[in-house]
Amino acid sequence: MSATTKQRIVEAGAALFRRQGYSGTGMKQIAAEAPAPFGSIYHFFPGGKDELGAEVIRISGRAYGQLVPMVFDAEPDVAIATRNFFIGAANALRASEFEDACPIATVALEVASTNELLRLATAEVFESWIKALAERFKRNGLPARRARELAVAMIAILEGAFVLSRAMRDARHVEVAGEVMAAAVRAALKERPVGSRKVR
Amino acid sequence: MSATTKQRIVEAGAALFRRQGYSGTGMKQIAAEAPAPFGSIYHFFPGGKDELGAEVIRISGRAYGQLVPMVFDAEPDVAIATRNFFIGAANALRASEFEDACPIATVALEVASTNELLRLATAEVFESWIKALAERFKRNGLPARRARELAVAMIAILEGAFVLSRAMRDARHVEVAGEVMAAAVRAALKERPVGSRKVR
Repeated sequence: MSATTKQRIVEAGAALFRRQGYSGTGMKQIAAEAPAPFGSIYHFFPGGKDELGAEVIRISGRAYGQLVPMVFDAEPDVAIATRNFFIGAANALRASEFEDACPIATVALEVASTNELLRLATAEVFESWIKALAERFKRNGLPARRARELAVAMIAILEGAFVLSRAMRDARHVEVAGEVMAAAVRAALKERPVGSRKVR
Repeated sequence: MSATTKQRIVEAGAALFRRQGYSGTGMKQIAAEAPAPFGSIYHFFPGGKDELGAEVIRISGRAYGQLVPMVFDAEPDVAIATRNFFIGAANALRASEFEDACPIATVALEVASTNELLRLATAEVFESWIKALAERFKRNGLPARRARELAVAMIAILEGAFVLSRAMRDARHVEVAGEVMAAAVRAALKERPVGSRKVR
């Protein structure tokens, strides 16, 4: 079925971009990995590699973003939920032999100065993650601006910890980042004005 | 002169890898950018692109690492120095139209699962940065383990803030990361046992 072929192409692209980057991945490799007839990629993505790349970024971004409600709904203490998020990420990294980190960071760095279409796709994904996290922090009584700053810091330290962990083959870096971030969240909750905590 | 040609090749490689990644950069482009005769690259780097890549990673890593003493020697308060480090990074990012961020992160993500020689070179560089920072934190009275954790967190949040800032064209993310990190350093200094502060 068409839908399935398209899906396989997107999934193969996602896996290859994450593992070896955008420039290092050829359309033939994606077709072989899917597997799908080479021509079918251009049937589904007439804009070629860039169109497929943008679709992969958006779909992977949405999938990864679903981890936010998954982890934060399961734990009422937002600082503990923050730490749990990093513990889950560290475990995924170990289980995948350091391949399964951020689905879009490699591509984001490759295209930031060279491909405006793809850069915008990565920017949209990061913005959606920041918004989702900021919303969680706001629900716990933080002012909007502070909540957004913490969300930016959390995505940043997670992304950077992925870089260190993959390069140094040590998932503990992600856990250390999570402990520092959880402490920052805990401190921010304490500094909020008395009586500002919203009842959920 | 030989030394100068080699230097120009390394500098051209560094600029191109940082801007567009390792896979997206060809040897011909490096030769054109240097400028240097194409054959001279293989004269200086008989191992080809990988050997040049490893050299670029080590040299860029050393150069960037020198920012640690530069920023931390100029400011006795280590939390303020931490914030200043990020402010400097944000300014460099703005001045370079979001090109001049981490010299090795793009390559690090591209090669982490695909090229062991280059992965090891990036791991060495990250380890040297972590050590240099941890040393600064230790000098301010933090126990070795805590100092290293903070150093890991600082490199992580800086690297990730670069990813967000380049993708979203907003250097403020690096400053926000710096404020969160400076607060974490300040908090760690307060939690240290009384009387443990070393006299410099």
